[in-house]
Amino acid sequence: MSHNTFGHLFRVTTFGESHGPALGCVVDGCPPGLALTAEEIQAELDRRRPGQSRFTTQRREPDAVKILSGVFQDERMAAQVTTGTPIALVIENVDQRSKDYSEIRDSYRPGHADFAYDVKYGVRDYRGGGRSSARETAARVAAGAIARKVVPGMVVRGALVQIGPHAIDRAAWDWEEVSRNPFFCPDAKAAALWADYLDGIRKSGSSVGAVVEIVAEGVPPGLGAPIYGKLDAELAGALMSINAVKGVEIGEGFAAAALTGEENADEMRPGNAGAPTFLSNRAGGVLGGISTGQPVVARFAVKPTSSILTPRASVTRQNGETDVLTKGRHDPCVGIRAVPVGEAMVACVLADHYLRHRGQVGAVRDWPLERPFG
Amino acid sequence: MSHNTFGHLFRVTTFGESHGPALGCVVDGCPPGLALTAEEIQAELDRRRPGQSRFTTQRREPDAVKILSGVFQDERMAAQVTTGTPIALVIENVDQRSKDYSEIRDSYRPGHADFAYDVKYGVRDYRGGGRSSARETAARVAAGAIARKVVPGMVVRGALVQIGPHAIDRAAWDWEEVSRNPFFCPDAKAAALWADYLDGIRKSGSSVGAVVEIVAEGVPPGLGAPIYGKLDAELAGALMSINAVKGVEIGEGFAAAALTGEENADEMRPGNAGAPTFLSNRAGGVLGGISTGQPVVARFAVKPTSSILTPRASVTRQNGETDVLTKGRHDPCVGIRAVPVGEAMVACVLADHYLRHRGQVGAVRDWPLERPFG
Amino acid sequence: MSHNTFGHLFRVTTFGESHGPALGCVVDGCPPGLALTAEEIQAELDRRRPGQSRFTTQRREPDAVKILSGVFQDERMAAQVTTGTPIALVIENVDQRSKDYSEIRDSYRPGHADFAYDVKYGVRDYRGGGRSSARETAARVAAGAIARKVVPGMVVRGALVQIGPHAIDRAAWDWEEVSRNPFFCPDAKAAALWADYLDGIRKSGSSVGAVVEIVAEGVPPGLGAPIYGKLDAELAGALMSINAVKGVEIGEGFAAAALTGEENADEMRPGNAGAPTFLSNRAGGVLGGISTGQPVVARFAVKPTSSILTPRASVTRQNGETDVLTKGRHDPCVGIRAVPVGEAMVACVLADHYLRHRGQVGAVRDWPLERPFG
Amino acid sequence: MSHNTFGHLFRVTTFGESHGPALGCVVDGCPPGLALTAEEIQAELDRRRPGQSRFTTQRREPDAVKILSGVFQDERMAAQVTTGTPIALVIENVDQRSKDYSEIRDSYRPGHADFAYDVKYGVRDYRGGGRSSARETAARVAAGAIARKVVPGMVVRGALVQIGPHAIDRAAWDWEEVSRNPFFCPDAKAAALWADYLDGIRKSGSSVGAVVEIVAEGVPPGLGAPIYGKLDAELAGALMSINAVKGVEIGEGFAAAALTGEENADEMRPGNAGAPTFLSNRAGGVLGGISTGQPVVARFAVKPTSSILTPRASVTRQNGETDVLTKGRHDPCVGIRAVPVGEAMVACVLADHYLRHRGQVGAVRDWPLERPFG
Repeated sequence: MSHNTFGHLFRVTTFGESHGPALGCVVDGCPPGLALTAEEIQAELDRRRPGQSRFTTQRREPDAVKILSGVFQDERMAAQVTTGTPIALVIENVDQRSKDYSEIRDSYRPGHADFAYDVKYGVRDYRGGGRSSARETAARVAAGAIARKVVPGMVVRGALVQIGPHAIDRAAWDWEEVSRNPFFCPDAKAAALWADYLDGIRKSGSSVGAVVEIVAEGVPPGLGAPIYGKLDAELAGALMSINAVKGVEIGEGFAAAALTGEENADEMRPGNAGAPTFLSNRAGGVLGGISTGQPVVARFAVKPTSSILTPRASVTRQNGETDVLTKGRHDPCVGIRAVPVGEAMVACVLADHYLRHRGQVGAVRDWPLERPFG
Repeated sequence: MSHNTFGHLFRVTTFGESHGPALGCVVDGCPPGLALTAEEIQAELDRRRPGQSRFTTQRREPDAVKILSGVFQDERMAAQVTTGTPIALVIENVDQRSKDYSEIRDSYRPGHADFAYDVKYGVRDYRGGGRSSARETAARVAAGAIARKVVPGMVVRGALVQIGPHAIDRAAWDWEEVSRNPFFCPDAKAAALWADYLDGIRKSGSSVGAVVEIVAEGVPPGLGAPIYGKLDAELAGALMSINAVKGVEIGEGFAAAALTGEENADEMRPGNAGAPTFLSNRAGGVLGGISTGQPVVARFAVKPTSSILTPRASVTRQNGETDVLTKGRHDPCVGIRAVPVGEAMVACVLADHYLRHRGQVGAVRDWPLERPFG
Repeated sequence: MSHNTFGHLFRVTTFGESHGPALGCVVDGCPPGLALTAEEIQAELDRRRPGQSRFTTQRREPDAVKILSGVFQDERMAAQVTTGTPIALVIENVDQRSKDYSEIRDSYRPGHADFAYDVKYGVRDYRGGGRSSARETAARVAAGAIARKVVPGMVVRGALVQIGPHAIDRAAWDWEEVSRNPFFCPDAKAAALWADYLDGIRKSGSSVGAVVEIVAEGVPPGLGAPIYGKLDAELAGALMSINAVKGVEIGEGFAAAALTGEENADEMRPGNAGAPTFLSNRAGGVLGGISTGQPVVARFAVKPTSSILTPRASVTRQNGETDVLTKGRHDPCVGIRAVPVGEAMVACVLADHYLRHRGQVGAVRDWPLERPFG
Repeated sequence: MSHNTFGHLFRVTTFGESHGPALGCVVDGCPPGLALTAEEIQAELDRRRPGQSRFTTQRREPDAVKILSGVFQDERMAAQVTTGTPIALVIENVDQRSKDYSEIRDSYRPGHADFAYDVKYGVRDYRGGGRSSARETAARVAAGAIARKVVPGMVVRGALVQIGPHAIDRAAWDWEEVSRNPFFCPDAKAAALWADYLDGIRKSGSSVGAVVEIVAEGVPPGLGAPIYGKLDAELAGALMSINAVKGVEIGEGFAAAALTGEENADEMRPGNAGAPTFLSNRAGGVLGGISTGQPVVARFAVKPTSSILTPRASVTRQNGETDVLTKGRHDPCVGIRAVPVGEAMVACVLADHYLRHRGQVGAVRDWPLERPFG
């Protein structure tokens, strides 16, 4: 599939520019009969919505979602449900500030997609970044809200684990803490430190990078497939497709390079329910591209926003010399709002693989395995 | 596309198990008229071939490739060329040692795909790892040899930059050095140190991880596309699909998380040929998912082989307790032979995006850009 | 691609139900820089719009299209153009009559998709046929209006060539006539006869089938590809996907079965412009799945609408016995409005193949062919 | 998917030229645990094999298939089974007669793909038709042999129902007869008449067209999906992709155009097993793109082979005037051997849709339908 679609059986196609009339997505392949309301999707969108603290862009977008198709309820039905047909979701843009864009119309913000879009397409909607704006991720979060319903029992959560050079103390990880601070931070002490640090960044008109960690629990074993359908390969592609992401890890990730085989092996012992118990999860829940039943753990690095107040050397569309600085409303750390986006992408990939597994193999396999075929 | 195919216009489908009769691939969508011989493909395969030093598995496989279709030459033609039809490549397995596999038939190597394949499919070809064996990567290298010919002027090279805890000195990087040592190491001093270190690992029956870096030069600007067709997203997916890979980075990668916007911006100045010159390449040649014309730089982390001599706790297929150790021929550092594999994957993704760009946009754009459409 | 998307580089995803808030599509992969306005799309939609004569459904839908994304114009540009990003089009439903659907809620119109949707999904939006309504084809026509712009010089036209048992006189074919009667009929005499015939059908509450012919001129040679990417195979799939279509032909079609090789061969002679001239076009412009440069000719058969006034034997959802008849607004010959839909599908398939050919091969080949590669 | 692959979850990629070393396919996505031997595949290939009567080409190809991957059996297993990994099949070409091809190297057989391949690719393997040869269909038949095993209880059979102007008497249809004559003809009298007729065609060096009918019984209801994933749309595409096919029908097909809604409706009554019984099958087992549980009935028209002894006007590659006639071994009616090919394509499409349905919906639905979701 090319361009603006991802997934195979659970397929998401997104559209929309930052300052166009609307953005949205079409979710195709969602199983029928899942209860689904606009309010549930809205709840996820609200977690990503800008302007909720001083640490994100002050653009005021309600991000109100409308469902245009794919759900149905009549007077005899207890709930609105999906029908198996494509679910179209639309979010209108309402706070596009009319302003003079002549400054960025013909010059390129260093580190931004401005240049690349122009060199590829020869024309671009430069207002607010156009298609390359992080506003597009609202459509992903909306799709993710549907994806979360596809795999029974699956829970996908995310957290910010590093801002600039400041990482959390993993021993202090508390999922409850994530919703108590404006950073999705699972470590209360780190959150306090980050608030001070990010105030400095924000006031100086600078920006900074971050690292996000996503954990999916309740993932059935057996999802994924050799060789290019590997679960971790598709997770990596999905997370790298988020704006500003420059690196992706599964489980130990880059740290695995420094380990020996003895250290890296996740040992197993017979478990209570007849299924094996893993004694560690360095693999991040994926072996050979296939889920093991352990939590799936992925991390991704988000680079600092390229929209900063300090002038940087650049060129114009006509190859002239210029210096560029960006005023206006921007996230000092775009990694913060990437947390619900990362959750959405992981949920979509897992929903897709769940349906693909059910298609090829029929069902999640029971344990212990019988000797088949003989 | 699902399972065992990757790419959209330049499409590669691989097949084969470690101890089956043969493995190979079908390359579909290769442009017609490219000169191509089996010898050229063989040359790439020989770089990945096992048994070339004491630091890789001692399995003796000639990895001799045959072209079954998709090329043609008659008596009036100066060279054998591609015809635009699918190119099927087959590599026979010749050194599958017949032995008793009863030990691993019903128990799982910790950290290996054994468990995951069984829980997914209920049956697996356990001989030599079956489909999950790194032997599959020979097919990727063969496909990559064709991909290298698709983008005019493109050169894709790779190097090992870390083994276990020992990274190279990047200041000492010398591409010439890569072919002079058994590690694809661009730093002669590091290579010497690695030889000692890896001898220790090898003799103890252990294994260790590594980091590989791939650099593609001569990549035209404009390749890639929003949003799920991003060049970096597809590179990440392709590299993460290589056996044992646990992390992928583009450009600065995870280090970008600790940078400010000022530090991360790749400044630009008008260049000689009418096109802009970048003053740095923290982006790794990709902005907004689209190539900038700078070298594309990707790194990936390879975990240590799970086949080690030290017993590890595990379970049997019947959920019984067991300890597993692996005798036999294995790579102490599977990351070494991953270098040509990584090159091949990067070449395939770039070839695919080159054709997709040519399809959607028509041609690589000239610089400076004209004001279009008005 | 599955479900609700078609095309590979020029990709169309449609959504929407007959009585939901809206229907529409996302066109992904359209080349940048094509002039495009909502008015141009509207002009095509108006050709398909219901209620324009007494021979189509009296549902009053303006079918007003809005472009939500993928186009741009600023004050320096002479026209609004495509940007290469996805083009989302939305058409609101405004004339869904609120009525009691309890009759068809739990029983199935024979010959209609009611039964099949229920047995597949277990739930369906039965109002007005839901997703299976021919209203979905408005989205196709809108996408087709964009597709028509992709291939330079291509013109796609259609005509109705048979209603019920009454075929046109092919010798009387006049393209000018097509827009002069309410049937898209190229034969004035036949149109007059059809008006009488169809009045009878309409007044009796019956319906009747039809045959549509689509002709695409200016199709460059070389579009299409072996084996499942054959141009005629994808045309057949695209046309058969239109509501109520039961047969598809290319060129001579089923009549070719009765011909000998001598009769069927389209002989060739050297032409004026250096390219060969075909002396006939029994092939319908496609040989070996690849366009020859001759007009591409396709025909498809449309069955009679299943919504009729005469009661037919059926069952209820609970497997009870019932008889079904359909009151309300319906097309007595749904084949009439299928003409612009067929044109749209042919235009989309040709646009897609044009981009795919440009991607794989680079450009349409000049003639006479040089001896390549030596 | 493009070019040489078809299917989505059950995916077939074919390769190979008529006079290259081998042809074959990779079947990806086949469920694990299906008993499968090379002998079973061979049995299907033998039905399509040339040279079995005087009415097919006298090329002597054993069409011996080898399985290179994707199956496994050990000493404890009662049968060789599929493992869920890609199944590669190879058939070597052994009877490529070495001869002088200079006649067709630079001139085009009217009605053949020679011209189209040259104009598309600029180079072609002209020996025996290269990639456009009907030999490619051997790979399809091999894949179909696997597809037949995927849907429990499904039986796919085909028959030749017309040769030239001579159709069978449908009242005389006897499936047993199909294997008793060299035409796959279900009507003994017609078979006798055809033998005489085709002897005349054959001796005069001419060729003739045919119509093939495929019937799939035991197809569960619910397979297929709106809108471009319609079962009949994908059947049409698959059948039109077979060499020389120019038309495809489902159920009544083109005859439906002449029917009224009353005539065309397949009435239903409550059936014995709780499921409805259809009183007719004009729909050919598909409504709204979804299978109804009735037999799926498809027909396709095959044009006469373009290789004939009578000279036809043509051009050379250099646009010179020439006349072309074809000596050598060819099928006087290529439609005969298209019967097992059509069966294979139908089996593959149904297998794919079965897996896709299982993926999206979970399972074939029980009857009578419960009121879901409340």
